[in-house]
Amino acid sequence: MSTIVIVGSGMMGSALSVPLSDNGHEVRLVGTPLDGAIVKHGKETGAHLTMKRQLPAAVKWYPFEEVAEAMEGADLYVNGVSSFGLDWFIQEMVPRIPESLPVLSVTKGMMNLPDGTLISYPELLEQSTDKKISFNAIGGPCTSYELADRDFTHVSFCGRDMEMLRWIKSLFETEYYNISLSTDVRGVECAVAMKNAYALAVGLAIGMSYAREGKEIEHYNSQAALFGQSVVEMNKLLDLCGGDPSNVRLAAGDLYVTVFGGRTRKIGLLLGTGMNFDEAMEKLAGVTLESIVISTRTAEAVRALIAAGKVQEADFPLLLHVDELVNQGKTVNVPWKKFETEFMV
Amino acid sequence: MSTIVIVGSGMMGSALSVPLSDNGHEVRLVGTPLDGAIVKHGKETGAHLTMKRQLPAAVKWYPFEEVAEAMEGADLYVNGVSSFGLDWFIQEMVPRIPESLPVLSVTKGMMNLPDGTLISYPELLEQSTDKKISFNAIGGPCTSYELADRDFTHVSFCGRDMEMLRWIKSLFETEYYNISLSTDVRGVECAVAMKNAYALAVGLAIGMSYAREGKEIEHYNSQAALFGQSVVEMNKLLDLCGGDPSNVRLAAGDLYVTVFGGRTRKIGLLLGTGMNFDEAMEKLAGVTLESIVISTRTAEAVRALIAAGKVQEADFPLLLHVDELVNQGKTVNVPWKKFETEFMV
Repeated sequence: MSTIVIVGSGMMGSALSVPLSDNGHEVRLVGTPLDGAIVKHGKETGAHLTMKRQLPAAVKWYPFEEVAEAMEGADLYVNGVSSFGLDWFIQEMVPRIPESLPVLSVTKGMMNLPDGTLISYPELLEQSTDKKISFNAIGGPCTSYELADRDFTHVSFCGRDMEMLRWIKSLFETEYYNISLSTDVRGVECAVAMKNAYALAVGLAIGMSYAREGKEIEHYNSQAALFGQSVVEMNKLLDLCGGDPSNVRLAAGDLYVTVFGGRTRKIGLLLGTGMNFDEAMEKLAGVTLESIVISTRTAEAVRALIAAGKVQEADFPLLLHVDELVNQGKTVNVPWKKFETEFMV
Repeated sequence: MSTIVIVGSGMMGSALSVPLSDNGHEVRLVGTPLDGAIVKHGKETGAHLTMKRQLPAAVKWYPFEEVAEAMEGADLYVNGVSSFGLDWFIQEMVPRIPESLPVLSVTKGMMNLPDGTLISYPELLEQSTDKKISFNAIGGPCTSYELADRDFTHVSFCGRDMEMLRWIKSLFETEYYNISLSTDVRGVECAVAMKNAYALAVGLAIGMSYAREGKEIEHYNSQAALFGQSVVEMNKLLDLCGGDPSNVRLAAGDLYVTVFGGRTRKIGLLLGTGMNFDEAMEKLAGVTLESIVISTRTAEAVRALIAAGKVQEADFPLLLHVDELVNQGKTVNVPWKKFETEFMV
């Protein structure tokens, strides 16, 4: 039996307690300073306040004030905060993590450097500290609800050291939670991050159907065309960020699941009906969206690379249209003709 | 203005009359001997009997008895029959087609040779005759309904001669009907054919959700995992059949649209609930399914290649499970653990 401390009791961090508990490990679930209500509710009822699921009875809940106690003797630290909590994690938590305590992050994302380089969060974390901490991360299509319900899921854990990854996998793997391993950190993270931008893009076709029909009827030819174009552009982005092309599995699977649910689909859908970004965000009551951040960063990176003559604007017509919608106040006008290709063997 | 004769007034052949008519071409829509009722209804009402759409008024309807008259002076022959009509097309129509009349087929599919080679229908057609007819084909995600409704669509035309393809494209292209071109015939056809097998596979997860929930609730982690695995295996199949990897766009887009609708999803769903193949087909009232034919042929080809030591069984766990379900009387038992990989850079 091992002891795992999960810091960040949002939905994904908390859902990971399910396979860990099923494997008989001790799970200490610690709220961030923003998670007070979740921890209080969890301590009282054993249920997760926002996920609305009973967590395994063996899970031990800790408010943030008790984080030091919760980390005592832990074998693995799970970083459960979203990308919006990344700075907090770097400033507040990394200094408390000893080099002997490996980290597994649920945080998905990339940062772009001014020269157009895209780097993954695990790399960013490594660069944030002089300490030699093993930073690993989870990628791949997984909604927290379904993981908590023990539904079949297949994700990838990535990190620099395959032996470390195998050990972490041994803690989590169950019949329903299937895990591939990869030392191609940038490839995995790039694949799973950029699907946010493209899920928004596929959502445009749904909104266009609704607008055309005047009711909630979906058309599929246009969604499929945008899905296919997304796969093409994601392949190119994977190549650009130095990731292995095999990661397209993660990108495509994750894109598929993201199109079906949640706020990323919703923002794409609203933009697809012809709203501009401000109107669409008003409808969504100003929620923060990782997809917006990712689209913007990826588009910034691509524009920097175009400016440097390293890639062609013609290679990313869909991403650049998403950027026009999100950052330039334009309304939907999918550049279909730019997707056409001629291929000669 | 050109004259296009479409032989086969099923839904896809007939839907192609819409962009052609919008471009001002003369369209002659000829029923096969099985299409008598469709042609009669079309002549009387201008509407398509099974697609339940009004076709452009300029479309001229012909019963099969008048096919010679309809072909007189045509610039392009559109072969509108499904793969189940392929033998009929080879035996009845190819002998009537002059070498000067290029062909564009809607028929999607592949044949497997005993040694495991997969060949495309255009290649098969070339081999079926000594005549030098230009056989071209359409691939890519397109439902006939939505094309007839002039919804945005992106397909690929493939054939050996790019100049010929450009001319055919010029007849069809409209604002809503977008067309890429490829001389990689086997790659395009392989991509669009094999998605049938994998759409059935993704459907399994939907059936598994229904069975677990006892009602029609879909889960997405498992669908996404099967979608991702499908993309992995389709990439390998593309490689095996000598197709260019860029065709994964077609495969992924076509898989996406096929999962959403129709009989392929349905058979996968029924198998996913735990039925065996005979029970599932009974529910579907014995309809013929291209997906079943394709799954079987592809699996046969892969098994022949495994026997010859050219590929590994471990490379196609999902396809081989579909084959077990369709051809070996087994019930659903997705080999999740076989999808797990280790990747080291």
